[in-house]
Amino acid sequence: MPTTTNPLRLWTDLTLFDGVQIHTQSMAVVVEGERIVWVGPKTELSASQLASADLMGTGGVMTPGLIDCHTHLVFGGDRADEFAQRLEGVSYAEIAAQGGGILSTVKATRAASEEELFTSAQARLEALMADGVTMVEIKSGYGLTMADELKMLRVARRLGEQNPVHIRTTLLGAHALPPEYAGQPDAYIDLICEQMIPQAAAEGLADAVDVFCEGIGFSVAQCERVFQAAQRHGLAVKAHAEQLSNLGGSALAARYQALSVDHIEWLDEAGVSAMAQAGTVATLLPGAFYTLRDTQVPPIDLLRQYGVPLALATDGNPGSSPIFQLTLMLNMACTLFRLTPLEALQGVTKNAAKALGLAEQAGVIAPGRHADFCLWRARNPYELVSTVQPGRLQQRVFRGAVTHG
Amino acid sequence: MPTTTNPLRLWTDLTLFDGVQIHTQSMAVVVEGERIVWVGPKTELSASQLASADLMGTGGVMTPGLIDCHTHLVFGGDRADEFAQRLEGVSYAEIAAQGGGILSTVKATRAASEEELFTSAQARLEALMADGVTMVEIKSGYGLTMADELKMLRVARRLGEQNPVHIRTTLLGAHALPPEYAGQPDAYIDLICEQMIPQAAAEGLADAVDVFCEGIGFSVAQCERVFQAAQRHGLAVKAHAEQLSNLGGSALAARYQALSVDHIEWLDEAGVSAMAQAGTVATLLPGAFYTLRDTQVPPIDLLRQYGVPLALATDGNPGSSPIFQLTLMLNMACTLFRLTPLEALQGVTKNAAKALGLAEQAGVIAPGRHADFCLWRARNPYELVSTVQPGRLQQRVFRGAVTHG
Ligand SMILES: [Zn+2]
Ligand SMILES: [Zn+2]
Repeated sequence: MPTTTNPLRLWTDLTLFDGVQIHTQSMAVVVEGERIVWVGPKTELSASQLASADLMGTGGVMTPGLIDCHTHLVFGGDRADEFAQRLEGVSYAEIAAQGGGILSTVKATRAASEEELFTSAQARLEALMADGVTMVEIKSGYGLTMADELKMLRVARRLGEQNPVHIRTTLLGAHALPPEYAGQPDAYIDLICEQMIPQAAAEGLADAVDVFCEGIGFSVAQCERVFQAAQRHGLAVKAHAEQLSNLGGSALAARYQALSVDHIEWLDEAGVSAMAQAGTVATLLPGAFYTLRDTQVPPIDLLRQYGVPLALATDGNPGSSPIFQLTLMLNMACTLFRLTPLEALQGVTKNAAKALGLAEQAGVIAPGRHADFCLWRARNPYELVSTVQPGRLQQRVFRGAVTHG
Repeated sequence: MPTTTNPLRLWTDLTLFDGVQIHTQSMAVVVEGERIVWVGPKTELSASQLASADLMGTGGVMTPGLIDCHTHLVFGGDRADEFAQRLEGVSYAEIAAQGGGILSTVKATRAASEEELFTSAQARLEALMADGVTMVEIKSGYGLTMADELKMLRVARRLGEQNPVHIRTTLLGAHALPPEYAGQPDAYIDLICEQMIPQAAAEGLADAVDVFCEGIGFSVAQCERVFQAAQRHGLAVKAHAEQLSNLGGSALAARYQALSVDHIEWLDEAGVSAMAQAGTVATLLPGAFYTLRDTQVPPIDLLRQYGVPLALATDGNPGSSPIFQLTLMLNMACTLFRLTPLEALQGVTKNAAKALGLAEQAGVIAPGRHADFCLWRARNPYELVSTVQPGRLQQRVFRGAVTHG
C-alpha cells in the first residue's frame, strides 16, 4: 500500500462483498482520489498506515455500488389510472380503445419537453441512488421518431451530468411499432437503421442499441437488420428476447456478440449455448415477471450449467415493471427465480457491469477501480437479499466522494 | 372553520385520499395542535382564513398516516444465512436439525436483552416510518416464556414512547409450541391462560391477544381457551387463521368478536359469513403469500360480497415475510390478490385502524381526528399503489408535528 501520497481515506472493520465473493474477516479499503488503492484484511495494515488515512467508516457491510443495467427510466406521464382500471374490471380492449398501454406512454413522451422528462426521471433516479445504485442504464423507446428518441437519450445523458451516478444510454428505437407505421414494420426498421442509429452514433448519444424481439415486437429478421446497422456504427447490441415466446432472438443476439439478452423466460438450450459461446450476459428481470404474473421461470439451471453470467435489473418502466428499487430485485430473484443470494449480489454488481460492457471498469471493489461503493447497516451481505427493508444504506460513495449519509 | 384560535397550520392544493375516498378537486386541511379542525375544497376557505394560518405544504397527494396492523417487528437475530442455505439446496430437515426456522428466532430472542431487541427493532421501525407509517401493531410470540413474552411487549411499548409513532401491542404467546413443552401443547396453553395473559393485562402491556390457529400451530379448541382467558381479562382478540388449511379458526374468532382474522388464504364461505356478522376485519398479508410462494389466493370476491372490511399489513417478521415496507404491500395486494388500488389504500388506513379496534380514532382525515397524515410527491393516489418507488414521502405528520421532510 502506498504511503507517500495523501490524503488517503479509509474504511475498516468491514464485512466485504467485493462483487465476486464475501470476505467475513475484518476487511479494510483505502481510497485515494477517485480510485481504490488497497483492499485487504485490516490486520495487514500497519498502525502508521491506519493513522495516515482519514477514517470514513467502520463496521457494517460494504458492497460495490449497485448497477441497474436495464431501465426505461425516462418517460412521460404515468399509467396509474390504467393500473386501477384493469383491477376495476375494465377490459384490455377498452383500455386499448382509450389509447392505453405502451402507446399512451409514447404519446405522453412525445408531448413532454426535455425539461419535463428530466424532472420526472430525476425523482426515479433519486430513488435508485438512495437504494445504493451508482450506475444506471437508460433506454429510449417511447419516442419512436428520430427527434423523440434522441430527446430521450439527451435527457438520459443530462441525468448523468447532473447527478453523482454513471449513466449508460441505449437506443431502443425497435421497442414498439409507432402508430404512424401501422402495417409497415420494415419501413420503420429502415428509419431506425438509416436515420436513428447513424444520428445517435454521430452525436455520441447511445452507448448501445437494443431491440424487442417478440411476436408483439419485431421479428428475428428485423432485429438482425438493426444489429447490422449498429455494427456499422460501432455500437454494441442488446436484446429483449424470449420473454413471451421462443423466437430465437437470443441466439441471433449472440451471433452479434450482444452484451446481454434480457428477460429470457422462454430461452431454450440452443440459445443458452449460443450465449455462453459469445460471452453474452443473461439479464433477469423479476420485476416484470412479478408484475405480469408470469409463471414461466427463466432456465436458471441451464444458464448455470453453461456458465452464462447472470445479471439482475429493475426493468423500471411505467407499465410492465413500475419498480424503481434495485434491492427489491435481489429478493425477487431469489424468491421467484431461486437464485442464491450470492448470485443475486453478483447480478447487480460484477455481472451487471459486464452486461454494460464495463466488466473491467465497474462492479468490483479492487485496487485500481473507481471508488464506487456502498456501506450498509447490516451484519451479513445476505441480509440485503433476504430482507426488504429500505433505509439500510449508510453511505454511498461515488468516485471516492460520499454522496449519501 | 374556527377563526378565533391560533396558530393554525394549513395544507392546500391537495389531491386527498381521506381514508375512504379520493377527492381530486384542490383540497385543503387545517390543523390546530394535534387535531385536524377542517377539511374541504380550498375554494371554501376565505382569503382571511388562508392568511391566518401557517402554510405547511402545497400540492401533492395527502393520505392518512399509514397503519401497519400486523407485524412481528421485535425479534432477536436474523435468518439471512438460513435464507441462503435453502436456496443453496440445504434441505429443510438439515436446517431444522441445525435449530433453524422459528425456533432459531425464539432462541435468539430469549438470549437478547431488552436493549438489543430495542435497537434492532428501532431500525425496522424507522424503515416503516420513512415509508409513511404512523401506527404499528407489534406482536410478541418469539419469547414463549412469560418473562420473554413480556420482555418483547415492553420493548414494543418503549418503541412507541421513544418515536413519533403510535404502537399497539398484541400478546401472541400461542405462536408456536416452545421446545420445553414438546408433546404437551395443552400445558403450554395453561401457561398462556393462567400466567401470560393475566400478567400482561395487569401490567397493561397488551392491547390484544392473538393465536396461530393451524395444524403446525394450535387447534381450534386450544385457541378458544386462549380467547376465553383474554375475554376474562378484558382484552380483544385476533387470529392467524386459515393460512395453510381451513380449520375454522376464523369462525371461532368471529364468535369472540375478533378485531381481525389474518392471512385467511383458505377461508370458506361459512367463515366469511361469520366474520361479516361479527364485524371482524380480514387482514391480508401478501408479503407472506409472496415469500412462501403460496398459490392459494384469499377469497376476495366472497369477502367483498359479504362486506367484510379488508386490511393489509406487512406481517414483517424474520422468516415468512421479511419485508418492512408497507407501500410495497399496496402493490402486492393488487398484483397478487387483485385488490383495486382504492381497496388497497383503505386497507392501510381506515380498515387497518378498524383491525386494531381504533376505527373511531385513526385511519381517516376528518375534523376532530388526530393530525396523522402524509404528503407524497405524486399526482394521483393510485401512483402510490401502481409504482414501487421509495422516497416519495415528502412530509410525515404525527399528532400535528412534521416528523419527516
Ligand atoms: Zn425492458
Ligand atoms: Zn403474523
